[in-house]
Amino acid sequence: MRAARYYGNGDIRIEEIEEPTVGPGQVGVDVAWCGICGTDLHEFKDGPIFCPKPGHPHPISGEDAPITLGHEFSGVVSSLGEGVTDLEIGQHVVVEPYIIREGVNTGPDSRDYHLSPDMNFIGLAGRGGGLGEKIAVARRWVHPISNDVPLDQAALIEPLSVGYHAVERSGAKAGDVAIVGGAGPIGLLTAAVLKAQGATVVISELSPLRRQKALDTKVADHAFDPREVDVVEEVKKLTDGRGADVAFECTSVQPAMDTLVEALRPQGVLVIVSIWGQRGSFDMQQIVLKELDVRGTIAYVNSHPGTIKLVEEGKINLAPFITGKIGLDGLISEGFDTLINRNETAVKILVSPSGKGL
Amino acid sequence: MRAARYYGNGDIRIEEIEEPTVGPGQVGVDVAWCGICGTDLHEFKDGPIFCPKPGHPHPISGEDAPITLGHEFSGVVSSLGEGVTDLEIGQHVVVEPYIIREGVNTGPDSRDYHLSPDMNFIGLAGRGGGLGEKIAVARRWVHPISNDVPLDQAALIEPLSVGYHAVERSGAKAGDVAIVGGAGPIGLLTAAVLKAQGATVVISELSPLRRQKALDTKVADHAFDPREVDVVEEVKKLTDGRGADVAFECTSVQPAMDTLVEALRPQGVLVIVSIWGQRGSFDMQQIVLKELDVRGTIAYVNSHPGTIKLVEEGKINLAPFITGKIGLDGLISEGFDTLINRNETAVKILVSPSGKGL
Repeated sequence: MRAARYYGNGDIRIEEIEEPTVGPGQVGVDVAWCGICGTDLHEFKDGPIFCPKPGHPHPISGEDAPITLGHEFSGVVSSLGEGVTDLEIGQHVVVEPYIIREGVNTGPDSRDYHLSPDMNFIGLAGRGGGLGEKIAVARRWVHPISNDVPLDQAALIEPLSVGYHAVERSGAKAGDVAIVGGAGPIGLLTAAVLKAQGATVVISELSPLRRQKALDTKVADHAFDPREVDVVEEVKKLTDGRGADVAFECTSVQPAMDTLVEALRPQGVLVIVSIWGQRGSFDMQQIVLKELDVRGTIAYVNSHPGTIKLVEEGKINLAPFITGKIGLDGLISEGFDTLINRNETAVKILVSPSGKGL
Repeated sequence: MRAARYYGNGDIRIEEIEEPTVGPGQVGVDVAWCGICGTDLHEFKDGPIFCPKPGHPHPISGEDAPITLGHEFSGVVSSLGEGVTDLEIGQHVVVEPYIIREGVNTGPDSRDYHLSPDMNFIGLAGRGGGLGEKIAVARRWVHPISNDVPLDQAALIEPLSVGYHAVERSGAKAGDVAIVGGAGPIGLLTAAVLKAQGATVVISELSPLRRQKALDTKVADHAFDPREVDVVEEVKKLTDGRGADVAFECTSVQPAMDTLVEALRPQGVLVIVSIWGQRGSFDMQQIVLKELDVRGTIAYVNSHPGTIKLVEEGKINLAPFITGKIGLDGLISEGFDTLINRNETAVKILVSPSGKGL
């Protein structure tokens, strides 16, 4: 079968590799669609970061580069390993792409397996990836999804779960006013979850194209250019002078974060969703005198079922976030190149590893 | 009666002023002891900050400088205003020294009256102060305390409530490992609450005298000099490599805060207790990848009853934190001067406005 494999910085190759065998407790999945994530771009441009270097196998997966890429994917169950009895061939599924050490509690009540030592991701540190035609995944990480949800949209469940978990971390509730800094893919999907849960959503974003996307997809009630309007004042107008209840930092840019801190009401919550390459600073007086909460969030933890429910119930329409569909051969020339160089119009580019979806 | 009155920067005068009249709904209190707070020193050295300047009356109290100082005080009920029927003359009391706008919910379930617009403090922005012989206070802000608690110790209830609320904000529970950065008065009293509630307490502090105080008063199980030992490693040793559950920033010093961030376990909570004059920065990767919570805390809100209970039950002994007792005449020459210039040995200096306690 064909797969995109990461060899190292700037070196991703489309290769013919062996099909995975489906072991006991595993589910064989024919990958339908796999999204390209910002993390994949980082590995390509600045990596290896998550991917284990040759000669330095990951302590849980035991694998090192080359590694099959792709962790945002949907597919169809093609075979069931020994002992898997609660799924059927042909069932649509998505994968929660974790590599977690044996013995860590990954049960439905766990709130922290995603923070366990040496945690990494399928499609970044081994165990196959969504940028290959087939994959075998432990039953625990396979989530069935209604066959009524189109498989291309289902591939966006994984990044949507990131937004879902960020909203979980915020404690946002229906009726809250939320401000999202940045309308890149994660900002938009976080806004989508907030809207689906009944919040009023304000987006602050420099790019007019991204602001338009936020309005067109109806994930934002208001989208402001912070160079043109005083975003803090606009939020105050919307909240009788009080300030936003929750804020989501999805830019890793200092002035954007400062705006969120100022826009929050007393006892408001700021969730840091983006990965920062540099230190970030705060007006500590605002944190103290407004008793703000600044909360980090990473990935997801038992967040897939709730995320899937929002999509199955039609509360989030993922279709408008799909801005491109390509095959494996176009991965770098069309996919990565578009996302790196023309990322204002692209949100999510999906890859069909088998080419069957194209 | 005599009182210490703040006229402006560097200008505090001991004066003869009129006794307050006790209006309807108010309680007349003969002040026993009043502590000198870091905030008082700030007003003297760097102010006015909280104190309203002459010609700029506070919007709620309507008063401007000169203002009677003192907000950490205990006393004895001397008279009851019309309608006050649930206290008795001779009852020991402490005051929760708030000036809050009419109409704000200050009921027992409120969690945010301390963050209401124009909030300020008795003893900083009007309505008398603990550095006067007598005061009349609205019943809402008067908390009875067992007459078995000595009145000098009772004067420390107010700063102890600051530590109590900081611990409330952290969500710390019995069995947790807590690290406190800084063993000044608020660091020590925060540690005292943590110990009383069953936490293991680690203090990081540069001053050997303050470290010794933390150990002598038994509020810390361990007190480390961050220049001599790797505090993060020590905390890891105490927690099977996991890290501290909660941390309290009581220094407003950047490297101290960095140590706390590093010492926290995944999903740990850092409470910012100190008032920062400058911006503070964070390793954002740690906030995100460990899903830390950074929470501001200011003063107290319905925290006095719980704080008083800890003292009445003997779970906190406030006696060792009293390091000096003076009269009003020594306020600047003995009190302020000691705290500004010899603050490593002094924790809390108490003033007897009437001189009766000396």
